[in-house]
Amino acid sequence: MRRTKVSDVLKSDEIGKEIVVKGWVRTRRGSKQVNFIALNDGSTIHNLQIVADVEKFGDELLKRLTTGSAISVTGEIIASQGSGQKVEVVAKAIEVIGDCDANEYPLQPKKHSLEFLREIGHLRFRTNTFSAIARVRHAMIFAVHNFFTSKGFVNVHTPIITASDCEGAGEMFQVTTMNLNNLPRTEEGKIDFSQDFFGKATNLTVSGQLEGELAAMGMGEIYTFGPTFRAENSNTSRHLAEFWMIEPEMAFYELDDNMDLAEEFLKYLIKYALDHCMDDLQFLSQRLQEEEKGKKEEDRSMELIEKLRFVLENDFIRLTYSEAVNILKDSKPNKKGQFKYPINGYGSDLQSEHERFLVEKHFKKPVILTDYPKEIKAFYMKMNPDNSTVRAMDVLFPQIGEIIGGSQREENYDKLVNRMKEMHIPAEEMWWYLDTRRFGSVPHSGFGLGFERLMLFVTGMGNIRDVIPFPRTPKNAEF
Amino acid sequence: MRRTKVSDVLKSDEIGKEIVVKGWVRTRRGSKQVNFIALNDGSTIHNLQIVADVEKFGDELLKRLTTGSAISVTGEIIASQGSGQKVEVVAKAIEVIGDCDANEYPLQPKKHSLEFLREIGHLRFRTNTFSAIARVRHAMIFAVHNFFTSKGFVNVHTPIITASDCEGAGEMFQVTTMNLNNLPRTEEGKIDFSQDFFGKATNLTVSGQLEGELAAMGMGEIYTFGPTFRAENSNTSRHLAEFWMIEPEMAFYELDDNMDLAEEFLKYLIKYALDHCMDDLQFLSQRLQEEEKGKKEEDRSMELIEKLRFVLENDFIRLTYSEAVNILKDSKPNKKGQFKYPINGYGSDLQSEHERFLVEKHFKKPVILTDYPKEIKAFYMKMNPDNSTVRAMDVLFPQIGEIIGGSQREENYDKLVNRMKEMHIPAEEMWWYLDTRRFGSVPHSGFGLGFERLMLFVTGMGNIRDVIPFPRTPKNAEF
Repeated sequence: MRRTKVSDVLKSDEIGKEIVVKGWVRTRRGSKQVNFIALNDGSTIHNLQIVADVEKFGDELLKRLTTGSAISVTGEIIASQGSGQKVEVVAKAIEVIGDCDANEYPLQPKKHSLEFLREIGHLRFRTNTFSAIARVRHAMIFAVHNFFTSKGFVNVHTPIITASDCEGAGEMFQVTTMNLNNLPRTEEGKIDFSQDFFGKATNLTVSGQLEGELAAMGMGEIYTFGPTFRAENSNTSRHLAEFWMIEPEMAFYELDDNMDLAEEFLKYLIKYALDHCMDDLQFLSQRLQEEEKGKKEEDRSMELIEKLRFVLENDFIRLTYSEAVNILKDSKPNKKGQFKYPINGYGSDLQSEHERFLVEKHFKKPVILTDYPKEIKAFYMKMNPDNSTVRAMDVLFPQIGEIIGGSQREENYDKLVNRMKEMHIPAEEMWWYLDTRRFGSVPHSGFGLGFERLMLFVTGMGNIRDVIPFPRTPKNAEF
Repeated sequence: MRRTKVSDVLKSDEIGKEIVVKGWVRTRRGSKQVNFIALNDGSTIHNLQIVADVEKFGDELLKRLTTGSAISVTGEIIASQGSGQKVEVVAKAIEVIGDCDANEYPLQPKKHSLEFLREIGHLRFRTNTFSAIARVRHAMIFAVHNFFTSKGFVNVHTPIITASDCEGAGEMFQVTTMNLNNLPRTEEGKIDFSQDFFGKATNLTVSGQLEGELAAMGMGEIYTFGPTFRAENSNTSRHLAEFWMIEPEMAFYELDDNMDLAEEFLKYLIKYALDHCMDDLQFLSQRLQEEEKGKKEEDRSMELIEKLRFVLENDFIRLTYSEAVNILKDSKPNKKGQFKYPINGYGSDLQSEHERFLVEKHFKKPVILTDYPKEIKAFYMKMNPDNSTVRAMDVLFPQIGEIIGGSQREENYDKLVNRMKEMHIPAEEMWWYLDTRRFGSVPHSGFGLGFERLMLFVTGMGNIRDVIPFPRTPKNAEF
């Protein structure tokens, strides 16, 4: 008989039906007469209760049903006597598929710290928290593809290995097949990259945007969804060396269209989570509340589901960087010296504390800031007529701060080349990028969403290492 | 007014409606009275015909509408006079958004070789062939996610940077942030990887399978879809240094379940292409037929759409490696010495020529081979009771040969450790992988589909560099 998934059993109302379920034992408890086994197979946050007659199965077998052991149960669906579930299963036959030595297994049914669970990242999928996160992560991946597909966008796989280092030089991972113990040298004694695999120095991509623009200049509307890399030596709860980014790029979009799309996109994703992951979100909400029990009330997060609805139900406030700086300059925390980085006026780079103040305290709504000073933004952003600000946009969220960064792109060849010169970006290496401005150039825009930032927001987790299955951080590339 | 996409205009029956369309000019032709502009915006293989009155717009403007230039047209949908399309658009206003100098633009409307188009990979999205491929590629990406989501599988992002080198050592790309000009050394003079970013030597992943297994041992059914890397110095039409793989991994699946899933998956993808990409497939079919005009009839490919239906409509033949070797040994091409690699008997590694013979000549159906000799397969495959073959399965397709490779995995701890010793794989570095066999181990299976192999099959293209947007091959990491 084919196995039925636990999620399907729990939804079933076929009382009396015989089924086979397989999964891992979470707990076993009971009396001398009857044992209750909580079985989980990863399909849902909920366990299926298996009722096992002690006399029928005998102590020897039942003792093997320790936490973490894998079993197959043939049994009959019955209406549940307890309050938790609608149904449970009375076991007719139990087979131990894989034993699990309780003296060795690190995931005993007690509270484990998130730090400890990171150390056993190969097993943490078997916990409620991390299986919930994995299911929500999947739902968000699918929602991303669903959103863009329904709008006719084309997903483009931009390259991971790249010879271009125009953004973020110095924070890139080098990729090479050269023998490090015997590096090939040129006659002048320099490393001879012509002998490397690609015939030149290569790195891991920091963004698919530039290649995404190439695609948009033929396909119209595209998006990337792939891994990106930063070799930044930051050991914080917000940084990963390897993370996933979604970068849509759209021909014929100006800044307003870009903001409309970003807002619609984020709301779609959050609505999708609420519509498809309520079980997991409720669990994650409880987890967060328990985690924050010890905190003062004013330091606690907004309840998770309430926070998600907050984004859905509010129009995002749109204002310029200048306006935001004025608000921040005159704000109480600035005047009282409560910001770690005081705002002195126009030109200040905004930190997470400022972004969160605007969203959480001042507007009490998500915020989109636009028209930043050119000095603090990238070379490819379209210059405003004032010649001093660029058509950038950052979407700011509670808890997270910046969740999306984007801009209208400079489509004018001469202006773009000028800006590259000013910023010491070698135009000759970027001939292919500049070609899009030489041949049928059009206004276009795009943005980037750090997928793990979104995951932090949707799950309420506090550390970015807990929302990606196998985090890569300084001194850590386990599993 | 918001722009309407060309694909929507061509489906429209709102004759008389005023719309704005934007895109790139493919061609312009006409008489002294009227010009016909073929406009494409990437949304479909078909161009929209714009009818422009010469007197109304004047020569000066119309001359700027060269191939590759970007324009915005406001006009009225009319029923088409010609035979090609249902509708066309009579221009009321034309604006040149971006000029395109005909003396400089490399994509003039004439036949270009695929080799030349690879050199201008940044512009090839603007051709019929590559925009068709990009749309089909997107459809296949979405179909992959749709298939697995509908079955309750969870997409897991396995790591790209990994310290594990258990498969394919020697063919991996090294990842480092160390200064190559001044590598840190230990006291013994060895390279000091403890000072590298991750504190040890790291590589780009060659497969997400091992981490996928970790996830499946908690989530039940998972799949990966991400980039993988091989530093193989193969300059062929079948190899890429960077390519995308789909690797499902399923707890409680034995070899038969694995084969069932692989067959269902491939049929789903191909049916999805036929249902959603017929315009592009018809174009690609014609392209292939033109490309093969010069060939003898027996050397020509099966017509593309016929070939796709061939897979859909046939049950895949399943037989063991031994049976296949017997067929091949006794086959005409083997006896006549027509195979480049003659089949001498059991133990021979099968080459693409043998796989294609079985599929295209012998069975005339897709084939799944199982139970290969352990010597030619990976360490993690489940040993058969004969102790000499493993529960591997390879799915063989016309044109491609092996399109899927998979197996049931060895779930028995002792057998797995033994096999690793025999194959000199350091078990101590794989403690995390082995843990899944120590704690609640279950039978499980999985397979890998090289996404570009699938793309070759579905598009009928002959060179793998043409089915990925930005190919990475030896001495080539352009764009």
